Amino acid sequence: MAQVHDASAVLRPIDWVGGIDGYVDLIDQTLLPGECKFIECRSVEVIHDAICRLAVRGAPAIGVAAAMGLVLGVRDSEAEGEAFQREVERVCTYLSETRPTAKNLFWALGRMRAKATSLAQRPVDEIKTMLLEEARAIRDEDAAMCRAIGEAGQSLITEGDGVLTHCNAGALATSEYGTALALMYAAHERGRRFRVYADETRPLLQGSRLTAWELSREGIDITVICDSMAALVMRDSLVQLVITGADCIAANGDAANKVGTYSVAVLAKAHNVPFYVAAPSTTFDLALSCGAEIPIEERSSDEIRVGFGIPTAPENVGFFSPAFDVTPAELVTGLITERGIIQPVTRDRIAEALS
Amino acid sequence: MAQVHDASAVLRPIDWVGGIDGYVDLIDQTLLPGECKFIECRSVEVIHDAICRLAVRGAPAIGVAAAMGLVLGVRDSEAEGEAFQREVERVCTYLSETRPTAKNLFWALGRMRAKATSLAQRPVDEIKTMLLEEARAIRDEDAAMCRAIGEAGQSLITEGDGVLTHCNAGALATSEYGTALALMYAAHERGRRFRVYADETRPLLQGSRLTAWELSREGIDITVICDSMAALVMRDSLVQLVITGADCIAANGDAANKVGTYSVAVLAKAHNVPFYVAAPSTTFDLALSCGAEIPIEERSSDEIRVGFGIPTAPENVGFFSPAFDVTPAELVTGLITERGIIQPVTRDRIAEALS
Repeated sequence: MAQVHDASAVLRPIDWVGGIDGYVDLIDQTLLPGECKFIECRSVEVIHDAICRLAVRGAPAIGVAAAMGLVLGVRDSEAEGEAFQREVERVCTYLSETRPTAKNLFWALGRMRAKATSLAQRPVDEIKTMLLEEARAIRDEDAAMCRAIGEAGQSLITEGDGVLTHCNAGALATSEYGTALALMYAAHERGRRFRVYADETRPLLQGSRLTAWELSREGIDITVICDSMAALVMRDSLVQLVITGADCIAANGDAANKVGTYSVAVLAKAHNVPFYVAAPSTTFDLALSCGAEIPIEERSSDEIRVGFGIPTAPENVGFFSPAFDVTPAELVTGLITERGIIQPVTRDRIAEALS
Repeated sequence: MAQVHDASAVLRPIDWVGGIDGYVDLIDQTLLPGECKFIECRSVEVIHDAICRLAVRGAPAIGVAAAMGLVLGVRDSEAEGEAFQREVERVCTYLSETRPTAKNLFWALGRMRAKATSLAQRPVDEIKTMLLEEARAIRDEDAAMCRAIGEAGQSLITEGDGVLTHCNAGALATSEYGTALALMYAAHERGRRFRVYADETRPLLQGSRLTAWELSREGIDITVICDSMAALVMRDSLVQLVITGADCIAANGDAANKVGTYSVAVLAKAHNVPFYVAAPSTTFDLALSCGAEIPIEERSSDEIRVGFGIPTAPENVGFFSPAFDVTPAELVTGLITERGIIQPVTRDRIAEALS
């Protein structure tokens, strides 16, 4: 069961190693691209911390981390019966307070909680084992959904294309293979040649640090640009397609994703470049009518003010540091899910596709 | 003549101190906002280096630095007559190779060269003294043009406005007072309250390092955002006006400025926010018919790849690192010069205003 940590293996940024006494093994993404180091997480507190400080990030990967974190949080509990169920609740609440925008976090914890409830009459040891199986199933299903997203969308990338992406919606953001980047992997596996332009994605540079790292590892032609250059590569016709991931998609198709995605969508429209969002069905929240209802996480201004340990702005000025923004559905050409492409993006089509 | 280096003084990022045996005193802008340190430049090589590594930057300031650098480059020459004129030519060529896009660099060196030629029959010591006077005149005239730009455009900023700017077109980019920021200083002096949003301006962060520093020093309300957030503050109606500087403006009004400016202009149009460019007449190059003829400097990819001494992207990927981009005239609401506002921006209006 031990994960193979060599460069040629399928990139699995998060996995459970061993049985119920095992641990969560995850790449500390804050160290990439300089160092590819795995953290052995043996307590829920370590998982909580890893999610908060973005050692694991990307909505699907956060969902998997939370599900596995829940197992870590209850496996040593000596509570029985209803007391054990309350433990499950407590740990779910604790984990749900990490990242408010990532829909998959709440989805995965909801599924784990429902599993525990459904097993309430069983012996606690059996519940614990079944919860580990459920967490592993969430991981495996996520990986399968990512493969299916790649299949569903790969034909959008044609030979010679330039494809722009923002942030990292790749293997590192999921169980493996990615969402937006799944299309690229699938097209690459078919021998198609294309060039990816990766926005570096300030403030935390997930594009230059993570997307560039994982695509170059697979031999995909990748060029890093500053976020402010996306308009320029579009104007120069270097880009024929934009694909990003999402952290939460409302019932009308408004999609929250890493801050800057809205900017890219507006620029794509102005340059007549199609703009697609790739995400598994677990990223949709049909209880949210539109994007205005999606909670947007505000992060520390130090992420902007102090780059890599060095202050790059005066202390006595204001900062605006939302982690996400919402791209309205009218700017989204299509939504690529494991069930196919939803296009045009309308409330009815989404409801139909996800039913 | 010695420059007063205290925080309450008018910010003069570059000046000549003393007589012909004196030196150029300039702020090393690479150290801001952490440290406000002046460099005493006593040779043209030090000026050349300061321009190349952006210790002094901003088209008008580069022009002043080059004019003063020429004085440093010839003052110790023992050549006479035509040989001295050849020395002037040699030093002009050397300095002109520093930054290809900054129009003011070529303008200032052309003026210094013309001055030397006009004085060819005079004793060399006299020519040297007159060249220093000419360089000082260029500085003083630039300062006066900046004040006039501020006067011409200040009424565009009204009470309660949000004003977005990109890069640094402030005192630090000029002899004093700035171009885009001159409007803000002039409005602030009239007691008008407004908030400035400064794009941090990757890769070298002139917005967060320089614009935030100099505006906060004057007590102007300033909020730093990542470049990718400009669209968001426009969508949220936090910004009623965009003002940037320029490094070169062609005869039709196409304007080259720090990379990312084109993106801001497209976003401003999409959100119906007026987009103004402020620059002295010395930034125009009427010999260039349109923006496509403006030479665009490509800088080292390390400016993107290695942020603050720390590698933030893999080495084996591509980078795209233009220092400037061109905003087409049709996206520019108006051009603010020391002679008034050119609006609408057309070839004829520009020719008329600059004649």
